[in-house]
Amino acid sequence: MADRSDRSTPRLGDMPSAEFREAAHRVAERVADYLERVESYPVLPAVQPGDVRAALPGEPPRGAEPFERILSDYASLVEPNITHWQHPGFLAYFPSVASGPGILGEWLSAGLNSNVMLWRNAPASTELEQVVVDWLRQMLGLPAGLDGMLTDTASVSSLLAFVAARHAVPGLDAREEGLAGRPTIGRLRAYASTEAHSSIDKGAIVTGVGCSGLRKIPVDAEFRMRPDELGRAIAEDRAAGWTPFLVVATLGTTSSTAIDPAGAIATICERERLWLHVDAAYAGAAAIVPEMRPLFAGWEHAQSIVFNPHKWMFTPFDASLLLFREAAAFRDAFSLVPEYLRTSVDADVRNYSEYGVQLGRRFRALKLWFEIRYFGVDGIAARIREHCRMAGVLAERIDADPDWERLAPTPFATLCFRHRPAGAAIAEAELDLRNAAILDAVNRTGRFFLSHTRLAGRYALRVSIGNPRATMAHVDGCWEALRDAAKAARP
Amino acid sequence: MADRSDRSTPRLGDMPSAEFREAAHRVAERVADYLERVESYPVLPAVQPGDVRAALPGEPPRGAEPFERILSDYASLVEPNITHWQHPGFLAYFPSVASGPGILGEWLSAGLNSNVMLWRNAPASTELEQVVVDWLRQMLGLPAGLDGMLTDTASVSSLLAFVAARHAVPGLDAREEGLAGRPTIGRLRAYASTEAHSSIDKGAIVTGVGCSGLRKIPVDAEFRMRPDELGRAIAEDRAAGWTPFLVVATLGTTSSTAIDPAGAIATICERERLWLHVDAAYAGAAAIVPEMRPLFAGWEHAQSIVFNPHKWMFTPFDASLLLFREAAAFRDAFSLVPEYLRTSVDADVRNYSEYGVQLGRRFRALKLWFEIRYFGVDGIAARIREHCRMAGVLAERIDADPDWERLAPTPFATLCFRHRPAGAAIAEAELDLRNAAILDAVNRTGRFFLSHTRLAGRYALRVSIGNPRATMAHVDGCWEALRDAAKAARP
Repeated sequence: MADRSDRSTPRLGDMPSAEFREAAHRVAERVADYLERVESYPVLPAVQPGDVRAALPGEPPRGAEPFERILSDYASLVEPNITHWQHPGFLAYFPSVASGPGILGEWLSAGLNSNVMLWRNAPASTELEQVVVDWLRQMLGLPAGLDGMLTDTASVSSLLAFVAARHAVPGLDAREEGLAGRPTIGRLRAYASTEAHSSIDKGAIVTGVGCSGLRKIPVDAEFRMRPDELGRAIAEDRAAGWTPFLVVATLGTTSSTAIDPAGAIATICERERLWLHVDAAYAGAAAIVPEMRPLFAGWEHAQSIVFNPHKWMFTPFDASLLLFREAAAFRDAFSLVPEYLRTSVDADVRNYSEYGVQLGRRFRALKLWFEIRYFGVDGIAARIREHCRMAGVLAERIDADPDWERLAPTPFATLCFRHRPAGAAIAEAELDLRNAAILDAVNRTGRFFLSHTRLAGRYALRVSIGNPRATMAHVDGCWEALRDAAKAARP
Repeated sequence: MADRSDRSTPRLGDMPSAEFREAAHRVAERVADYLERVESYPVLPAVQPGDVRAALPGEPPRGAEPFERILSDYASLVEPNITHWQHPGFLAYFPSVASGPGILGEWLSAGLNSNVMLWRNAPASTELEQVVVDWLRQMLGLPAGLDGMLTDTASVSSLLAFVAARHAVPGLDAREEGLAGRPTIGRLRAYASTEAHSSIDKGAIVTGVGCSGLRKIPVDAEFRMRPDELGRAIAEDRAAGWTPFLVVATLGTTSSTAIDPAGAIATICERERLWLHVDAAYAGAAAIVPEMRPLFAGWEHAQSIVFNPHKWMFTPFDASLLLFREAAAFRDAFSLVPEYLRTSVDADVRNYSEYGVQLGRRFRALKLWFEIRYFGVDGIAARIREHCRMAGVLAERIDADPDWERLAPTPFATLCFRHRPAGAAIAEAELDLRNAAILDAVNRTGRFFLSHTRLAGRYALRVSIGNPRATMAHVDGCWEALRDAAKAARP
């Protein structure tokens, strides 16, 4: 480490070159070590609320500190006290795992700090995004003609779809006049299943459609939107003076990964002239596996589709893919080009900031380019296929054990299930409590982190397999931990 | 590089440990080299639209490729064909420069892949964000009691302020009922100066307020919002049945870095009970310099403030600070906690995803923690002070040269000016063309990248100094290049 004793008077400039180079190698070692020994950490740290905050000074330092000390504080205070999303025992929520090549693409991107707002200020970054977006479209088996962009999150991708769909409503100029500008047009109404993600509700809130402007359509016994109920709701709403404008079909819901019938919903949307937005943020990854693609039949008719490579495609957070049928629908809804952003090549290029909320945009295409090339499309498909296979094995074990039951089908690699001792009549409320106790016990082992949900009112344990470093040994260990916890939870 | 010949059949797992370690060191070298030799690149690459795309395969590779080849393609195809935001000759737009310690913080963050949605799944990351947000508040000289969070961009920070302000409108439940739900309440109206950033217009569009729901207030000769005009507009709108709800004061506008009179505007907002949002995305950095803080007087009365550390505080993109007076106003507007996100500690912790649009959130606090500690608050202030000093020197040269004129005051480190040959009567349209030619000529040198704007209808050259690696030699070189270009542009 370079001598820093000369820094009592602030020196100007950036970190000196030689010091950066040395520090960069130290950080490279640190991250390589972390990935190598991540399983030596408990997935969920033992830290209590306030612990980390209490260990940090309340005031920022006035003087410069040596890099060595900062890195050492990182090692003792931050690394052990995070929840380890990279740990193969992290089976909660949906996977969000950064693969090696993805991490290295992100590092290069941080070094360049390329801000992909306009072609002129990010030529290679813009064109690489165009290429990678089209690669992803092909990987998903979607037809040519679908265009798109990368955003940060599915929350934002779906928000953009809300705004574009709203802008496309005939007779309403929401962009210019807002939603209260034409009292003669009935209130807007969007539709999604009762199992849709909370980001859809947020889209309704943010865009001024309001929660009551989002009608939740009932689901069938397998938690899929019922198209007959959708058709009925639209007809009822039209009769009552609403203006239906948007349907969100979820392919892989957050609770149970249910698959709304995209084909039947698309037919309704076409008949009713409604915008169809497909939320496949998690499950879209499975469309990379050729034999799983039939599960998505019909999504190719959507006006917009969101899929998050940062979920089950091993891409460092953040990276969400928003595909759209008509790029102009997004550009018309969002484009604002003040004088200071005009360039001489605007007519010939894509300026991505015209298609969404954010003007500044990270260079996300680089990590995807690294990762897709490093693993290859077949390699990515093989990993996703393997996760589904492991989930299938666990599903078979649950089904074969009379003391356990699955609470939803397992079309992908996420399982919802519970412990229900055979031959005993136990009240639902008691089952909920016992399964919550099992969850706590498994999570306290430090070897696994599972989450939960509720399905048809029942408390469900939830396991989602999606880490490329996860093997059958992790699945075996988790099943064992669950059965041990269930034994202990017996009254 | 490890032998990859065994990969014709896809191997599962992530990149092997030893290979990752070796590749990480190569990337560390690559980034250190890039930062060391960034000035050997032309700031604006010579690449033409379509060049990069044409050099890339239209289809994604089915098989795995060696990391070495990917890195080599990065070196030949990406690095030379981006616009170099890190180059000290990049004087366009506003600075967005990633410092050494910031880059290394970002690298560690990519390794952890900590998703800061809830405390439970990101304990240290959440608490470090709380600490860093409060450090930043103190650095800006703002009073205790202002709380806040990190977002990706000012576009999103201001959007969140729009939604929270809208939710606070008495008698309107925008969250539940949307904007068309209460026809008895007049249309919402927000106010910003004619010089406000396009993200404010986007906020109006996205939230359903509409462009016509944003009234642009005239500015004075120095491009500052006129409080008298603001007061008059509000009174006029109330009389006409509008519902005023939000005023955006810009401290450091994008074109000329004009400073709206925050104190006078705050007084009006208090009297009229309107939400005051301060957009100091760029200039906020100057409030870290104690003697510059008076320029911001009055902003402490705002309900929300946005400042972007990724602009003039050397932080890798992205990092925007949103400060708010009432955290509850944001939580009430946005919070949605589905069953699968509930945890046992929710009552004791901050769950940041409840305060905005995005559920998934990057771990941005780490790079800020690294950077603030490495430079120290005094060190950051010293760099910003030096940028202002250099801008002051350039302003003096422009003022002293009869052939040049400044078109706006220079309160920070951004200058707007033009060439206007002394003693010649040249039409405004002709001056515009000549200055556009000067801009092109300077940018074609490859040594500098300047941008332009329009001020009171006049084409203005624009120079923004904010790279910690920039020195007086760069400013001298830029001034020389401008004068050379002006000579050549003479008819």
